[in-house]
Amino acid sequence: MAKAPGSKQPVIALLGGGQLGRMFLENALRYDVEVQVLDPDPHCSCAQLASVFVQGRFDDRDAVMRFAQDADVVGIEIEHVSVEAMEALKAAGKTVIPDPSVLRTIKDKGLQKQFYRDHGIATLDFALIADKAEIAQHEALLPGFLKSRTGGYDGKGVMPMNSLADADTAFDGPCVLEKRAEIALELGVLVVRSAKGAHVVYDPVEMVFDPRFNLVDHLRAPARIEATLAKKAKQLALRVADAFAEPGLYAVELFLTKSGELLVNETAPRAHNSGHHTIEACASSQFDQLLRLYMGWPMGDVGLRGKAAMINLVGEGGAGPVDVKGLDDVLHVPGTFLHLYGKKETRTGRKMGHVTVVAGSDAELDQAIAVTKVHCRVEPITDLTIHKQ
Amino acid sequence: MAKAPGSKQPVIALLGGGQLGRMFLENALRYDVEVQVLDPDPHCSCAQLASVFVQGRFDDRDAVMRFAQDADVVGIEIEHVSVEAMEALKAAGKTVIPDPSVLRTIKDKGLQKQFYRDHGIATLDFALIADKAEIAQHEALLPGFLKSRTGGYDGKGVMPMNSLADADTAFDGPCVLEKRAEIALELGVLVVRSAKGAHVVYDPVEMVFDPRFNLVDHLRAPARIEATLAKKAKQLALRVADAFAEPGLYAVELFLTKSGELLVNETAPRAHNSGHHTIEACASSQFDQLLRLYMGWPMGDVGLRGKAAMINLVGEGGAGPVDVKGLDDVLHVPGTFLHLYGKKETRTGRKMGHVTVVAGSDAELDQAIAVTKVHCRVEPITDLTIHKQ
Repeated sequence: MAKAPGSKQPVIALLGGGQLGRMFLENALRYDVEVQVLDPDPHCSCAQLASVFVQGRFDDRDAVMRFAQDADVVGIEIEHVSVEAMEALKAAGKTVIPDPSVLRTIKDKGLQKQFYRDHGIATLDFALIADKAEIAQHEALLPGFLKSRTGGYDGKGVMPMNSLADADTAFDGPCVLEKRAEIALELGVLVVRSAKGAHVVYDPVEMVFDPRFNLVDHLRAPARIEATLAKKAKQLALRVADAFAEPGLYAVELFLTKSGELLVNETAPRAHNSGHHTIEACASSQFDQLLRLYMGWPMGDVGLRGKAAMINLVGEGGAGPVDVKGLDDVLHVPGTFLHLYGKKETRTGRKMGHVTVVAGSDAELDQAIAVTKVHCRVEPITDLTIHKQ
Repeated sequence: MAKAPGSKQPVIALLGGGQLGRMFLENALRYDVEVQVLDPDPHCSCAQLASVFVQGRFDDRDAVMRFAQDADVVGIEIEHVSVEAMEALKAAGKTVIPDPSVLRTIKDKGLQKQFYRDHGIATLDFALIADKAEIAQHEALLPGFLKSRTGGYDGKGVMPMNSLADADTAFDGPCVLEKRAEIALELGVLVVRSAKGAHVVYDPVEMVFDPRFNLVDHLRAPARIEATLAKKAKQLALRVADAFAEPGLYAVELFLTKSGELLVNETAPRAHNSGHHTIEACASSQFDQLLRLYMGWPMGDVGLRGKAAMINLVGEGGAGPVDVKGLDDVLHVPGTFLHLYGKKETRTGRKMGHVTVVAGSDAELDQAIAVTKVHCRVEPITDLTIHKQ
């Protein structure tokens, strides 16, 4: 993993080799930068694309230290990495994005919520509890949600807490108990903060969730909200990035309540599903911005080229080798872009790809979303499928 | 090189692993298709990106046959491939694009010129000659250019023939002697012809050549010509594709003479330097169209998103490991996209990358072209460069 002799170019070590890493690599390829990837799965989305792929655990301090020892920049595509290693790599003089302090705060949903409260950033009311026995002390927060402080993702580690009766079957351990609000819309805002404290902010997107998987079903950009509200959402997201006060890409999820209040839900210090449309809808995508941060290059242009939608392709119908149905229908629609993540196996609820649409009008967007949702499905290949060929 | 068991997806075998192959792969990655690449150079632009990379000669019949035996589709990124192998692979039932008959005509500049004449397609007046002694029989074509019928590329194999006195030092062997015309503008038009004979045509681009290297220096899209002329250029390019009457991507180079005549110069049956802007300036790039042809998918959207320019980054100052200067200046310009081809060694006149600009006005485009041309240079790293770090 040593640099090429005489190379002037920084070497990037990326922790995690899933689809976010793959889309990062797809963009990075055109700049011919060297990106090394660490992931425990030798068949992960990045394994074949990285300049160097190392099989290993990104949550293991020693594995990360060995992997990144000769790199100049250390980045992540998942939060579940060894923060200790990132701290040591930063201490060794490497550029580490996100900063380990930011990651430490964000990885623990309790610390993250407390961080918003400490910085006067509006968020849903909450209490930190040590175990489920403490739920009873916070009846005023019910109905609400109980969230494991660590280890959750994509809706895992979250359960509704409608009344004290639900406490019996609750997670036991350190949790955030969060009051429920009447949500009108979920918004996502991406902020890029440079090493010099400058920033660019993408237009807010509106996210529609799939209740089956608790994943983003699709998003629209820009969000169909009034300009003053969009401006407020961008300001609030920027306040979050400014509070963290470190260079990085911040994907801030916001709730717009039915009473018109904007609240910060949570922040990811990395590329995020809510920014996939930026690959085609903006001159500089979220992945391009990350690379620019890593390389010390100027931030890119975040203007939207048109109205955009992004529809996740999520596995359905069980597990097995991948069969993507309806490709042809989707590829017929002008301004429609297909992304498949190179995962060898599909399973119900697994993110397998996405479709982006860039269009001139909401009507065109609606049509393209409908075509994608009606025709495009990711299912396992069955014996029957193979025999039919 | 066998297909994955149970895979429903065609496997593409690509002959040649240079920058055209690399840009093809960069786009193909998001669809997760399998692309295998053959090239004699193990350090070529595609070596690290292909699903399978095979080192071998694409102009060797047996090497190509072995390489492509298990593939479903055979494509090229360079004309200097074994046509015999492509004919045999087509006979074996594979999808071969371009068709071997098209390639056979185009590879021989004499056959190509004769093809235009036979199909009534306007081209510069010419004669086919067997050796330089025959030049004297065609004095009416002077001043002109002498072009080797085979083996030339990027201006190599072409020499001016101002008078009969130049015949002494001319190439000896089968050549095209072509009359010189007063050229106002060189235009490029890309045509995509589907297996069903349907087509899409990109807007004409104007190409500015660098007289030092006889390479495209930069191009602008759309060409700054009147709408009626642009329409005529598209019709002429389409006539070329229709005359070949086989599915494929046709990059047609046209001369606009000072008297306003449009003439076909030459055609490449593959992705081409004159279409690199389509990566960012169009929803479906020339590389995306090729993939769609290979896969049997519908053709893509060719509309231009704005005004675009593409500036080639060509090696200067000798040979050695690559040093790209002025990146930061270029990356500051909104709507500017950098492409470096991953070549390990630069040399004077070698295409090392390009910059694409998409802008709203000619003035913005002019500015971005100027910034790129003033600041961005590809040179060899010298010992001095390394020591200065």
